[in-house]
Amino acid sequence: MKGDNNGNLRTTQSDVLSISFRDDRLYFLDQTRLPEESVQEEQSSAEQVWDSIKRLKVRGAPAIGIAGAYGLYIGARRQLQTEPRMTADAFISQIEKTAAYLDSARPTAVNLSWALKRMIAAARAAAFATSAHPAAAPAAAAPAAGSVERILAALRTEAELIHEEDRQLCRGIGKAGLTLVREGIGILTHCNAGALATSILGTVTAPLYLAHQNGINFRVYADETRPLLQGARLTSWELDQGGIDVTLICDNMAASLMATGKVDIVLVGTDRVAANGDVANKIGTYGVALLARHFDIPFYVACPSSTVDFDTATGSLITIEERDPEEVRFFGARRIAPEQVKVWNPAFDVTPNEFVTGIITERGILRPPYADSLRTLRR
Amino acid sequence: MKGDNNGNLRTTQSDVLSISFRDDRLYFLDQTRLPEESVQEEQSSAEQVWDSIKRLKVRGAPAIGIAGAYGLYIGARRQLQTEPRMTADAFISQIEKTAAYLDSARPTAVNLSWALKRMIAAARAAAFATSAHPAAAPAAAAPAAGSVERILAALRTEAELIHEEDRQLCRGIGKAGLTLVREGIGILTHCNAGALATSILGTVTAPLYLAHQNGINFRVYADETRPLLQGARLTSWELDQGGIDVTLICDNMAASLMATGKVDIVLVGTDRVAANGDVANKIGTYGVALLARHFDIPFYVACPSSTVDFDTATGSLITIEERDPEEVRFFGARRIAPEQVKVWNPAFDVTPNEFVTGIITERGILRPPYADSLRTLRR
Repeated sequence: MKGDNNGNLRTTQSDVLSISFRDDRLYFLDQTRLPEESVQEEQSSAEQVWDSIKRLKVRGAPAIGIAGAYGLYIGARRQLQTEPRMTADAFISQIEKTAAYLDSARPTAVNLSWALKRMIAAARAAAFATSAHPAAAPAAAAPAAGSVERILAALRTEAELIHEEDRQLCRGIGKAGLTLVREGIGILTHCNAGALATSILGTVTAPLYLAHQNGINFRVYADETRPLLQGARLTSWELDQGGIDVTLICDNMAASLMATGKVDIVLVGTDRVAANGDVANKIGTYGVALLARHFDIPFYVACPSSTVDFDTATGSLITIEERDPEEVRFFGARRIAPEQVKVWNPAFDVTPNEFVTGIITERGILRPPYADSLRTLRR
Repeated sequence: MKGDNNGNLRTTQSDVLSISFRDDRLYFLDQTRLPEESVQEEQSSAEQVWDSIKRLKVRGAPAIGIAGAYGLYIGARRQLQTEPRMTADAFISQIEKTAAYLDSARPTAVNLSWALKRMIAAARAAAFATSAHPAAAPAAAAPAAGSVERILAALRTEAELIHEEDRQLCRGIGKAGLTLVREGIGILTHCNAGALATSILGTVTAPLYLAHQNGINFRVYADETRPLLQGARLTSWELDQGGIDVTLICDNMAASLMATGKVDIVLVGTDRVAANGDVANKIGTYGVALLARHFDIPFYVACPSSTVDFDTATGSLITIEERDPEEVRFFGARRIAPEQVKVWNPAFDVTPNEFVTGIITERGILRPPYADSLRTLRR
């Protein structure tokens, strides 16, 4: 990637792009084939996008939202090609059906339903704007006949806007966290909150990519992150692609690594931050935070400010999803544990706010006490 | 297993036996096929035993020593069948060659060379004992012709003695640790210091098997123990076989599990204890110890007293072997990380003595300060 010191990037051939939209064509990097193969797969129907989301070819909350938005546009475009004489009403109705269908690919992904709702609102706004009064308030007029092209254009514009907003968020996080990446330091991360999970740059990885562009030398240690190995498969792959010095370790090596003095900061992502600063993230994060505290290593969390859930007062109110025991009992096709052995497989854990040194958002680094600092984000 | 409250066991069909010697025949449980298949493979030559040790069909320091001892007996028996008219001198010379060969299967396994040296000494003693004076001092007389049968019998007796001594050690550790296994508690363990690594009962698992026989109910949580997954493949398998309530977790779930209050003690094995009580064990042990301290959970180590190395003053003097990066990059046949990504793969870590609540040996539970309590083992 190339860019200036403000984090404004021009994408180049070497970028890791989970989602690309070029010449009206949509491509997903098939993450299920990483690290063995890096394949940009064109998505030509809503059904294909649904399948790609379902099979985790595209993953990570922000990326799924963007993928769903483009998927809805692609689906609508095909519907219009099939029935070019459709009324605006019928078109909107088709779009809503396609949106509900796409949403069913990952029902618990908040970003997906959020993006699809935005897309439907944009389509409706375009439908209700009469050709005579394109800037009129959406609810003021009846649907105009022949506005289907305008609806389709609005879907495309909205998807590109959602995409661009995410790029700006990642750049903002990168700029905010850049001061933490000092020359010569070692950074431990867990799971993948990287470019692969977003539009570009990632959240955790955004300060790293920007620092690398600025010529700062540093080392990254990536926890492999059992059971699904996002650290091994995705983080070590994308940092390596980006030319960053990365070393892969098993999760249980973190304490020994910290004891050697090679880790100067820990930097992880998060799925949800409670109003008091408790942080829900991939299983294993809590352990890393406790070890970091033991070794007096700062522990930072990176996320868009929208990740703060003010409706959740504390982390103890977050329900931890338990996943399929077979994820632990099997590895690929090989059984690694007895068939009937009991397994505990929580997807997430919650790190109490007292172990969080700072939360890096696009609006700056927030510090304890989080009940106060997070509240400033609501303004 | 059946037994009385003193830990004296009669083995039954349901026992997990890494090594069996019945009717002059030697069997190893092929641990590379666990947990998919449980196969007792007969060993009929020194070459086969060498191969079984090399390929980790039999593993764990005590088990390797026993395996090597029986392997030498099996090899000598075959040599005598081939050349029944061999002189005692020639036979001893053959035995020494076979011992050196067996030792090369795992050159760093101290127990293997220790057991083979004992076997050679027993063979020599038998050779030097004349038939007229069977109780004479070994060094006093010249080798007696025709004593080859006596030498072979001495090898068999010595191997059985090494085997039986290990059973007694494990029983002793089991009895010493039995008081820690209270009704209803949860126990977290790491790696495999179980029956599979010893003659019977294991070290860490000995108190567990004895408590189970005594009708005490408790839960065990087994860390899967990346990269080689001994916890998943071996510990969860053997405890499940033994009827013990066992739950498998990924290494990075330990902190969350402890936070739920379900872990009352941690119990791990060790490869070497320094004179000050620092404990070298499978990578990941140190992290578990630090987490246990955070949650105020007692952290115990189980081992034979011979594991204490008085020539090593502190754990910082122990060299940590780094293993093949491919162990982390690959899982079975599947690559899980980029081909060239750097990997840090230390085999062991060292837990400082301040985090060790007690060391369970066949001579009782030793407590801090370890410089003093360990010294009592030398008497």
